[in-house]
Amino acid sequence: MISITIIGTGNVATHLFRAFQGIDSVTVAQVIGRTKESLKPFKQESKTSTHYEEIEDVDIYIITVSDAAIKEVSEHLSHTTGLVVHTSGAMAKSILQSSRKGVFYPLQTFTKGKTLDFSTIPICIEAENQDDYKLLEVLGKSLSPHIHHISSDQRKTLHLAAVFVNNFTNHMFYTAKEICETDNINFDLLKPLITETVEKIRFLTPEEAQTGPAVRNDVATMQRHLDGLENSMHKKIYQIVSESIRAAVSSEQ
Amino acid sequence: MISITIIGTGNVATHLFRAFQGIDSVTVAQVIGRTKESLKPFKQESKTSTHYEEIEDVDIYIITVSDAAIKEVSEHLSHTTGLVVHTSGAMAKSILQSSRKGVFYPLQTFTKGKTLDFSTIPICIEAENQDDYKLLEVLGKSLSPHIHHISSDQRKTLHLAAVFVNNFTNHMFYTAKEICETDNINFDLLKPLITETVEKIRFLTPEEAQTGPAVRNDVATMQRHLDGLENSMHKKIYQIVSESIRAAVSSEQ
Repeated sequence: MISITIIGTGNVATHLFRAFQGIDSVTVAQVIGRTKESLKPFKQESKTSTHYEEIEDVDIYIITVSDAAIKEVSEHLSHTTGLVVHTSGAMAKSILQSSRKGVFYPLQTFTKGKTLDFSTIPICIEAENQDDYKLLEVLGKSLSPHIHHISSDQRKTLHLAAVFVNNFTNHMFYTAKEICETDNINFDLLKPLITETVEKIRFLTPEEAQTGPAVRNDVATMQRHLDGLENSMHKKIYQIVSESIRAAVSSEQ
Repeated sequence: MISITIIGTGNVATHLFRAFQGIDSVTVAQVIGRTKESLKPFKQESKTSTHYEEIEDVDIYIITVSDAAIKEVSEHLSHTTGLVVHTSGAMAKSILQSSRKGVFYPLQTFTKGKTLDFSTIPICIEAENQDDYKLLEVLGKSLSPHIHHISSDQRKTLHLAAVFVNNFTNHMFYTAKEICETDNINFDLLKPLITETVEKIRFLTPEEAQTGPAVRNDVATMQRHLDGLENSMHKKIYQIVSESIRAAVSSEQ
């Protein structure tokens, strides 16, 4: 049995809490939050507290607070003997002020109110020694078979790549929706195409899956598209991304 | 029973041919291609020809050739009495040189060798009169319940929006893969995140689904990300898309 305490009450905390509630080999001893209000969703099923002095001894403390607050929160845990981990994609392990440090980073986007199947989520872990690594591995494997040893540097790179596939991809959807709205077209029409775009990369590399005027250097269509875009920001995105697709094609040749 | 002839032997032709083969109320009379070689995959199940003089009378001729060749191909059909349609997202209906003109545009990306479920695909149709529209509607409904009346202008807009959700989204995946490779990270790690990114827009608008440093104006993280990108094209994309996300947030406030 692994005992854990979750620090923070946001999306990551909520999803991890729900996931661990279903695991017999893990017990959530406490949830620590800033306000009683924020702890409400947890207090039926776990002890909760707003005071770091009340923190009990557990095997692993999981800090789920925002990047900017991790260091300060970890200072409150400097005297604990348990393993202290954060769940951030962007912060180094060394930011933690505890004696035992690690990272437990589930590579996923967490949405309030939407249940996630943790068994499909890659969990990137990092620790300072073999014993702590093993402990995190056991914790991770209770949720998902996809446990990866990723260093702090690699995790930063991964997090940056995640911005492209998540934040920027979503902004492509946003831009397409804006374009549709200029001509009274329902954005929903594009959803099957979006689904298929993602389906394709299950069995093709992004290089192989690339289609469209830029990859075939269809200058006439690209010019017509640029002329058709009224919004200067849409034009800029069209130009830069097309240029980048052209550069990718050239580098492969 | 609707009789059709498919002109062209590429991806769209192949997918439509396969789909119509499963429909009792539609018969593919002929497939017309430029070479005997290209017609091979069709000749077991349909008559084929490389000569426009051999074209038989049918209800609908479906031109699936590349945009640049549509006009010329339609000239060969100027004497037919059947309805002539093309399947292009980008070309106007008026480009057709036949007496009866229409458009039958399945809004999807077609990949060689990958079967598609046509019943999920929106089909955008357009004709010059009510009778021809009804005929295309019956043909479309044999494949999919999602038949939409989309004008030539709207179709151009839709096709441009499709470039963003398909071509440009795929290029975000490509860029992420390149970023991963700089640090020996397997791109597959990002695939569950990609799946969830698309899952989210089934019940959230792209505005609601937007997360990341740009939307919360986290300047420090954005600067760290830019510093972390070595490739100047990656930097440019990061800057423009972040700027565009910031502009979107401002316009909503």
